[in-house]
Amino acid sequence: MSDHLVAGIEPPYYTVVFTSHLQEDPSGYDETAARMQELVEQVPGYLGYESARTPGGLGITVGYFRDEEAIAAWRKNLEHQSAQRRGRAEWYRRYSVHVGKVERGYSFERE
Amino acid sequence: MSDHLVAGIEPPYYTVVFTSHLQEDPSGYDETAARMQELVEQVPGYLGYESARTPGGLGITVGYFRDEEAIAAWRKNLEHQSAQRRGRAEWYRRYSVHVGKVERGYSFERE
Repeated sequence: MSDHLVAGIEPPYYTVVFTSHLQEDPSGYDETAARMQELVEQVPGYLGYESARTPGGLGITVGYFRDEEAIAAWRKNLEHQSAQRRGRAEWYRRYSVHVGKVERGYSFERE
Repeated sequence: MSDHLVAGIEPPYYTVVFTSHLQEDPSGYDETAARMQELVEQVPGYLGYESARTPGGLGITVGYFRDEEAIAAWRKNLEHQSAQRRGRAEWYRRYSVHVGKVERGYSFERE
């Protein structure tokens, strides 16, 4: 998982909040997650992501996109769709998705 | 940290994505985070939150609010403002905030 923060993007942009609980033994999940990361970086208008997971608990990934067209392009990616099907069949106990249009963002960094 | 997912809210609503790196020894952080959780639940229009932290790495908390008025009420809370100041002075290495208006959300739950 990446350790950087996404900050300093000029609004408007979009956040896709993906929150999930994994099954106990999500075999193949890490490899597919890494492959999805490679793929999404090729989507025009993709701006970055942040990801955190409490061990044994909730995972939250936030994807940042310039516009709805970029989100739609990622949603329509066939390899991504295949991974989503496998996720529902094998990996996730539950998940939720919230797509938000961001009009303001700010950040703090220690000097 | 809570382990539930926020799902099934009727749009529009707002997500406040708060992503952070903590200092190495954030003394007092957990107690204040718990107190903030108590406080935010009293804000009219507060709808819930999700939180995850990779050990030693990134933490992401997503707060859900009905409207801008609810976000503003939380932002203006004096005890919250005091905690934010202490966060910048003592606890956080860096953080970013993204406020998004959600027009669509969906969820999946294993049967």
